[in-house]
Amino acid sequence: MDILVVKISSGMVLTKWNRKYYEIKETFMKNIITVICCVAFFTSNAQTFEKDSIMLRSIHTETLTKGKAYDWLHHICYQIGHRLSGSHGEKKMIEFLKTELEELNTDVKLQPVMVPHWVRGLPEYAYIQTAKNKITPVPILALGGSVATPASGIKGQVIEFKSLEDLEKADINSVIGKIVFLNGALPNEYIDAFDSYSACGSQRYSGARVAVNKGAIAVIVRSLSHKIDDHPHTGVMSYEDLPKSRHIPAAAISTKGADLLSTLLVLNPKLEFYFKQNCKTFDDVQSYNVIGEIKGSLYPDEIITFGAHLDSWDVGHGAHDDGAGVAQSLEVIRIFKSLNYKPKRTIRIVLFANEENGARGGQKYAEESKKNRENQIFALETDAGGFSPRGFNLRGEAQKIEKIKMWEKLFTPYYIHLFRKGYPGLDISPLQTENNVLAGLVPDSQRYFDHHHSETDVFDAVNKRELSLGAAAITSLIYLVDMYGL
Amino acid sequence: MDILVVKISSGMVLTKWNRKYYEIKETFMKNIITVICCVAFFTSNAQTFEKDSIMLRSIHTETLTKGKAYDWLHHICYQIGHRLSGSHGEKKMIEFLKTELEELNTDVKLQPVMVPHWVRGLPEYAYIQTAKNKITPVPILALGGSVATPASGIKGQVIEFKSLEDLEKADINSVIGKIVFLNGALPNEYIDAFDSYSACGSQRYSGARVAVNKGAIAVIVRSLSHKIDDHPHTGVMSYEDLPKSRHIPAAAISTKGADLLSTLLVLNPKLEFYFKQNCKTFDDVQSYNVIGEIKGSLYPDEIITFGAHLDSWDVGHGAHDDGAGVAQSLEVIRIFKSLNYKPKRTIRIVLFANEENGARGGQKYAEESKKNRENQIFALETDAGGFSPRGFNLRGEAQKIEKIKMWEKLFTPYYIHLFRKGYPGLDISPLQTENNVLAGLVPDSQRYFDHHHSETDVFDAVNKRELSLGAAAITSLIYLVDMYGL
Repeated sequence: MDILVVKISSGMVLTKWNRKYYEIKETFMKNIITVICCVAFFTSNAQTFEKDSIMLRSIHTETLTKGKAYDWLHHICYQIGHRLSGSHGEKKMIEFLKTELEELNTDVKLQPVMVPHWVRGLPEYAYIQTAKNKITPVPILALGGSVATPASGIKGQVIEFKSLEDLEKADINSVIGKIVFLNGALPNEYIDAFDSYSACGSQRYSGARVAVNKGAIAVIVRSLSHKIDDHPHTGVMSYEDLPKSRHIPAAAISTKGADLLSTLLVLNPKLEFYFKQNCKTFDDVQSYNVIGEIKGSLYPDEIITFGAHLDSWDVGHGAHDDGAGVAQSLEVIRIFKSLNYKPKRTIRIVLFANEENGARGGQKYAEESKKNRENQIFALETDAGGFSPRGFNLRGEAQKIEKIKMWEKLFTPYYIHLFRKGYPGLDISPLQTENNVLAGLVPDSQRYFDHHHSETDVFDAVNKRELSLGAAAITSLIYLVDMYGL
Repeated sequence: MDILVVKISSGMVLTKWNRKYYEIKETFMKNIITVICCVAFFTSNAQTFEKDSIMLRSIHTETLTKGKAYDWLHHICYQIGHRLSGSHGEKKMIEFLKTELEELNTDVKLQPVMVPHWVRGLPEYAYIQTAKNKITPVPILALGGSVATPASGIKGQVIEFKSLEDLEKADINSVIGKIVFLNGALPNEYIDAFDSYSACGSQRYSGARVAVNKGAIAVIVRSLSHKIDDHPHTGVMSYEDLPKSRHIPAAAISTKGADLLSTLLVLNPKLEFYFKQNCKTFDDVQSYNVIGEIKGSLYPDEIITFGAHLDSWDVGHGAHDDGAGVAQSLEVIRIFKSLNYKPKRTIRIVLFANEENGARGGQKYAEESKKNRENQIFALETDAGGFSPRGFNLRGEAQKIEKIKMWEKLFTPYYIHLFRKGYPGLDISPLQTENNVLAGLVPDSQRYFDHHHSETDVFDAVNKRELSLGAAAITSLIYLVDMYGL
């Protein structure tokens, strides 16, 4: 900005470039002053807030100028790759995390947990057959937890439903012996893409269970994405209480494939759909939550847990889901170390095993914590993508949430405005008590489901600065909880 | 959400999927109620605000479910392509916009304006020579407005500066006869990427003028991007008051190329840089601002101008800069038509010619407007990328800005939180009076300069929902200004 100020004051003609930008607000120092002023209005203890606003600025500067989150994510994406429970990638990830946390001088522990072991096997294959010699291949992915088709594949007529409720209401005679095609598209009208996902997520999770009760031989589910493309999105499904003998194969079809199938069904309701997948569920295997701890200097018994999940689906890099969260969590520790910040309370990073197809890591961590009567005052999860941070979802004791909301003004220079009640995340949910607060980072949601659980969830879909800003946001909130307790 | 509510109330085990999302806030209806409640707190006229909140919701639903902005952008990117002043693409763009505005039943006018005509010519070529037979090609792009090198190219030793100020301070003897390499990297510590751009934008705009006064034979400028990659970023430069005889060639080098050159210079300060470009400035040519108008039903003399620029740089698609803004501006008209909204005031869409290398369109429009003594009460520009909207920059009469800020609560369900004083945009700036307000859409800034003025500013870099949400944000603000005046 100085350059421009000098230039403008010297009476130079305001040319395109400098006219375009000379008026924008003057750097972060001005922001700090604004924060200090605003906050002083709400509290007599302006000095404390000044100190905090300077600390938040230091946290942001540290990660934006010397951050390692993006390098960690690069390593996770390219040196490890995807990492479903029980896979080689998962083992490599656990080793990597242990090494990195040791390098960060934390006290590291591997917490054993048994996890599901589902394997996709050979690539799936599917086509729509509209006439004897007329087939159109379409991209599918087996849903996590699904059984295989017979080795020769499965073929049948198709009946389409726009939602799980429509299937539930259907006459069994119209479904029996057919392949159910659940074609609920993510609704567009919601502002938060997670709301869209919620609105038809159950067709993926419960589609097979409902379909089999109507006599279906298989289920094909429209991918849970707003984007119309050729990349199917997998994700967990469950047969719930169905006996093994009644399990039918379940797969996701790409949104483009779903639109094609739907259109062709209008033209020819008797067309047939063929698909083949040879996925398999093996016995549970040993895995680990990777836990790093820095003991609190003043209140070691008050524990602040934060983290992300170390596993991912077995397509793409698992970059946004949840390589980004893992990298951000490691960055929290690095920032504190780098700024020489010694926590008053015990800060514990947990990289959870098996969020994607069982959530066993989160359950195990909470079980052990309860067994040891730990006082988990606050837990924070980052598992909603590495996009520009917008705020936090908060759940728990009302007065404590109000206390956190009072810190919102400190975050406005970083365009963090959402401090709201909401769902914090799957892995930390079992830690909830009547007295504590759980938080989830809320990044911008618009692009998340374009990539979620698909082969496009890769390193290049993550922006370095957005990732770092998310790390700074969670570090800032953890710092405030550590400083003032809850 | 209903599906889940039914499922949860039936006592089903909370499985991964539904646990993950059942708690998130319940759809937009809840948002509307929140808005209504909040706003009622500030005004006794709750009914008005209820009506407005419903209108804003209608605007958002309309564009998110039936929007055309993304299709328009697709046409601009793939059927028209880039469109620098004087190019064939620019002519096609003007025709396209005229046709589309006529289809939208607006009163269309082409406003003549003479614009610069600079042509890149053959692709540029550059290499670093570290020894007699050792050359490393690096990607460059001529800066807009630069002169060509001699036909055989230009070659010389290189002197590197980290900023324009450093060059200004340099001893002329160290520079004379050399190629100046301005290697100021966008600073990382700013939160808003536009602040980073501002901090070293002058090296691109004024580099040649300063360098030639130190006796340099050419200037090479580091691309104005945070991203380290092989794509150089062009943009406008100016020789300002230098006579033609003293113009030296100026080019942008990719960030990766700049890092390489800088490193090699440390190893061998005597290395040579070679580059060739045959760009040329021709005589000014005829162009047009494309203007569409809907006459106000109650206050036709009060004019609300909004728009974007129709030109782009001559690399990539000009998707974010500013195809996105053009598509969003057309969408404003379409939304109003589709919702059958009849403006009280005169609503005028202006697609400005020649923002990129001269800003002549914006100047012309303001000149004509002044000549006709028009009452421009409000003008809004969208020229900061098609990313998720965060708010508005506002400039103008203080009390009127305060009035606009009072509407902020209506925008919170859409995660629009920034209503701040700031620079609105280049094309509308000449419309400023003492009594009016100018506004610029503020999208998330993090990815903008990754693409800005480079070959990666393509259709696929724009997300459909983010683009639509931006269109809804500006439509909402224009609606409120139209309803209540300023």
